[in-house]
Amino acid sequence: MSKQGLLIVISGPSGAGKGTICQALLERDSSFCLSVSCTTRPPRSGEKHGINYYFVGKEEFQRLIDEDQLLEYAKVYDNYYGTPRQFVVEKLAQGRDVILEIDIQGALQIKQKYPQGILIFLVPPTLSILQERLTKRGTDSPEVIAHRLNCVCDELSNTSQYDYLVTNDTVEHAVEMIEAIIKAEKCRPLHFDLQKFLTG
Amino acid sequence: MSKQGLLIVISGPSGAGKGTICQALLERDSSFCLSVSCTTRPPRSGEKHGINYYFVGKEEFQRLIDEDQLLEYAKVYDNYYGTPRQFVVEKLAQGRDVILEIDIQGALQIKQKYPQGILIFLVPPTLSILQERLTKRGTDSPEVIAHRLNCVCDELSNTSQYDYLVTNDTVEHAVEMIEAIIKAEKCRPLHFDLQKFLTG
Repeated sequence: MSKQGLLIVISGPSGAGKGTICQALLERDSSFCLSVSCTTRPPRSGEKHGINYYFVGKEEFQRLIDEDQLLEYAKVYDNYYGTPRQFVVEKLAQGRDVILEIDIQGALQIKQKYPQGILIFLVPPTLSILQERLTKRGTDSPEVIAHRLNCVCDELSNTSQYDYLVTNDTVEHAVEMIEAIIKAEKCRPLHFDLQKFLTG
Repeated sequence: MSKQGLLIVISGPSGAGKGTICQALLERDSSFCLSVSCTTRPPRSGEKHGINYYFVGKEEFQRLIDEDQLLEYAKVYDNYYGTPRQFVVEKLAQGRDVILEIDIQGALQIKQKYPQGILIFLVPPTLSILQERLTKRGTDSPEVIAHRLNCVCDELSNTSQYDYLVTNDTVEHAVEMIEAIIKAEKCRPLHFDLQKFLTG
């Protein structure tokens, strides 16, 4: 029996610190694979094609949709984001654990198509701390920030759609919780190797 | 909102090392409460009333059943074992995590009555190692050992009834996995404190 890897979906609101947490996870355990999303949004300063995102045009994105090459895709604030299917499927089949860092629309799509995926919702410590972070970041207008805060409250009104909620109070603590979740999920009945027990 | 503790049920076959693992868990984290079962079997050498078990007669055990004072009870090899309800219910309500070390019949009863309980099945590394352990222990006849090994195979033919399976290859590793499971379970939506997020 070849062992399928775990699909770990890290989601949560803008400003929750998804990117930082995913980088910290990869630094602590190099056996994880990080899926690189494709997007139609323009690169921000310092972002690299193939590392942070695959930056593609709207026509190219549409072609990927038409050819069913995306595991999920979503429109977030006028830009499209999607997860290339082939990379994820191949790595999981090789027994590698794959991390997806995606917005909540995409995360819920993944969970529908691949229920054994583990959906972790990263929560800022408090709503007021999130507001402070978004304000300090200075990339959004007060109206956009107000809209984002509203969205978070909506997203947290139905927590039962997430497998786990991890509070990002400190990177160290959040990473520790996610590592515990991954260890625990590997003890699920699905991953038990009966043959090894019987004949090992 | 007062926080309910976790009910952690450690089960598994005779010889899996349940007692050793529970003791190690308690030594590493003194915030856990261990539920003490009552039983009609006579004390083994060194066992103390109120510490290892409450040793009671068959009539007393029947009274506990009749008065609905047991959370579960089961007959295992001609002896009765049961979990006093009041201790568990009180500690959980105080927000304490309670560990139950019980056989699989009782564990499945708990899971039916209290689905949010976490059922961890402790698995010996392999069937042949279990056979070796039971033989070395010298408390069972070859027939009883053969029967026990058969039971284990039955118990592992339907793993989906357990929440987690933890292989007891070393005490250190098994305890590490159980601690990860407990951390992970505290990140379940059920335990998320929305009020704290909104107003904290």
